[in-house]
Amino acid sequence: AAVPKDVDYAQYFCTYAFLYHQKEMLSDRVRMDAYFNAIFENKRHFAGKTVLDVGTGSGILAIWSAQAGARKVYAVEATKMSEHARALVKANNLQDVVEVIEGSMEEVTLPEKVDVIVSEWMGYFLLRESMFDSVIHARDRWLKQTGVMYPSHARMWMAPIKTGIGDHKLGDYESTMDDWHNFVDETKTYYGVDMTVLSVRELEEQSEKYINTSLWNNLHPNQVVGTAAIIKEIDCLTATQTDIEKVRSNFSLSITHENTKLCGFGGWFDVHFRGRSEDPTEQEIELTTAPSVDYGTHWGQQVFLLHPPMHLSEGDDLRVSFLMSRSKENHRLMEVELGCEIHQQSGKLLAPFKNKYYIE
Amino acid sequence: AAVPKDVDYAQYFCTYAFLYHQKEMLSDRVRMDAYFNAIFENKRHFAGKTVLDVGTGSGILAIWSAQAGARKVYAVEATKMSEHARALVKANNLQDVVEVIEGSMEEVTLPEKVDVIVSEWMGYFLLRESMFDSVIHARDRWLKQTGVMYPSHARMWMAPIKTGIGDHKLGDYESTMDDWHNFVDETKTYYGVDMTVLSVRELEEQSEKYINTSLWNNLHPNQVVGTAAIIKEIDCLTATQTDIEKVRSNFSLSITHENTKLCGFGGWFDVHFRGRSEDPTEQEIELTTAPSVDYGTHWGQQVFLLHPPMHLSEGDDLRVSFLMSRSKENHRLMEVELGCEIHQQSGKLLAPFKNKYYIE
Ligand SMILES: Nc1ncnc2c1ncn2[C@@H]1O[C@H](CSCC[C@H](N)C(=O)O)[C@@H](O)[C@H]1O
Ligand SMILES: Nc1ncnc2c1ncn2[C@@H]1O[C@H](CSCC[C@H](N)C(=O)O)[C@@H](O)[C@H]1O
Repeated sequence: AAVPKDVDYAQYFCTYAFLYHQKEMLSDRVRMDAYFNAIFENKRHFAGKTVLDVGTGSGILAIWSAQAGARKVYAVEATKMSEHARALVKANNLQDVVEVIEGSMEEVTLPEKVDVIVSEWMGYFLLRESMFDSVIHARDRWLKQTGVMYPSHARMWMAPIKTGIGDHKLGDYESTMDDWHNFVDETKTYYGVDMTVLSVRELEEQSEKYINTSLWNNLHPNQVVGTAAIIKEIDCLTATQTDIEKVRSNFSLSITHENTKLCGFGGWFDVHFRGRSEDPTEQEIELTTAPSVDYGTHWGQQVFLLHPPMHLSEGDDLRVSFLMSRSKENHRLMEVELGCEIHQQSGKLLAPFKNKYYIE
Repeated sequence: AAVPKDVDYAQYFCTYAFLYHQKEMLSDRVRMDAYFNAIFENKRHFAGKTVLDVGTGSGILAIWSAQAGARKVYAVEATKMSEHARALVKANNLQDVVEVIEGSMEEVTLPEKVDVIVSEWMGYFLLRESMFDSVIHARDRWLKQTGVMYPSHARMWMAPIKTGIGDHKLGDYESTMDDWHNFVDETKTYYGVDMTVLSVRELEEQSEKYINTSLWNNLHPNQVVGTAAIIKEIDCLTATQTDIEKVRSNFSLSITHENTKLCGFGGWFDVHFRGRSEDPTEQEIELTTAPSVDYGTHWGQQVFLLHPPMHLSEGDDLRVSFLMSRSKENHRLMEVELGCEIHQQSGKLLAPFKNKYYIE
């Protein structure tokens, strides 16, 4: 089902039309360093070449591509931010190289095919926002046979974690429900209407909000209590729409901390700039959003909480079945089903569980 | 220009589909008492009558109408909240009287005309959300010649105020701009791109956000430093779409405090339940959202800030020209132009000013 363009604008693009939102991304030093180094340490891929920047925003990646020697850069942006990108290109005297095109990638026409596609398309937990769809579309339509993708690869990761936010959220949830029950009592007393029948729905709504929606967090590495597993690997040159619409994966995680609490799971991603196998980058650059003391990103990690937390210990083994699909109401948001069996070191098998989460 | 239905849903209706939002309104005791008393102290208007509730939400006003003796109540609601309204009606054993209809008021068909239209359509500063459009539409199509509107009248008010939030907002604005200038320096140093050209746009964006967007506030009555004036009166039985699309008004405000600061203007509304002139209510009920110590509402007041504040004193006279129109991007949001001339008691005429505000 195609999404009407104006609804997509109201729900998604509109925020990107604000400079403060672009600035948030432009202030993420880990992100900026990765793209900067990827481009300038691999000038060979850009010098004299044609480049397409999918979703140029402020124009930064297009400008860097031009500064690295590109012959021509097409910078496509769906929102009015394109006007600022154009001004920025001009102020940096690159108007002869960078052509800013306002429009959605799916609809614009370029005068030629390109040697390189550069794009910063990653959302929370990699695929939120579903913007990679537009990169695939651009690649299939506009990248030369010999073309290179920047970044070239992407991976999703997951690891068992301990955290205190679960308790907070549970507390919030409980006080909201207390509040609701008082409200029901008062409405009956003062206004003669019994709202008890809606309690089920309120419970659903609030547990969806507090318990079943994944949370943005910048985890400290020592909150990761076990091994991390790769959920999904994407080769940006060959991945298809079907490859990314649903992410299904079975993997194992081993607890590496002694006597610890499993409070949930942390999810993150990394991308790599490796060029093309026949034409690799001189320097392989990595952009990771893994838990880190010094190098947090605006993406942070997504936390999927477990209630109640479980006491586990070193050597305990988690067999996870993971399924991420798009929300029916909004294809740019995700739903996750996470099933887990725990085989303890002792040989004991704990009761398996299966939870549903929303990535909002 | 008609608004596509699904965009309107994404921007407006969607929030009403959540119980927590309905609960916020249902927990507003001032609001609830006013409608409750209006209905139950004027049962004559309801007993044996047909009623239409425009935008029934949880169904509360429809249920009260039925409890007050209505023969039939049509309860129209655009969102899935209609399902909860239906459950609530059933749980209160009123399913034979109240018929919940899911659909937008503009599109549904009723089997008959009605004696009463009851609706809680008021947004911030009365007209935000533009929901009264739907009430007008319902009235012109479904109210009998002799029908009654609940509420029957509405007014918009404005008064000069003093407040500390202006300083806070100015502080926020200034630190955001400092931040921006640092960001521009760093981007030039580390990434070789000069973003100075965007500073104008950033300034615009941030001043729009911190300076020119009106603020929700619950003012204390002693923050009102002068007389309040009525900006607009609406007779709900006769008002037309054109009457409310633009609100234009010139009025005077007198400062009543000695040696005070004018920090801006507070805007609020009230509505009355008077029935119909040939068929008035026995008890006239008022719902006011004016500044009050004990009876704050979820609507609060809208504050329009003035920078810098002006020193004024008792007897100084403000001649205000006020124009409120709908935002071009979203017809449910408003833009206000507020011009002011100040004639001081001393005979001195201060430099007039004219500000633009957004009600978001
Ligand atoms: N299909 C599409 N067509 C055009 N622009 C798109 C798009 N999907 C997303 N975008 C734009 O892509 C941008 C992603 S954010 C990245 C901005 C910039 N490249 C940077 O790295 O700082 C947003 O500005 C968004 O509006
Ligand atoms: N044109 C329209 N058609 C149907 N419902 C509408 C509407 N415009 C607004 N609404 C609904 O009107 C409600 C307004 S809020 C008031 C809810 C309820 N009557 C109460 O007093 O508590 C919302 O639930 C909104 O979804």
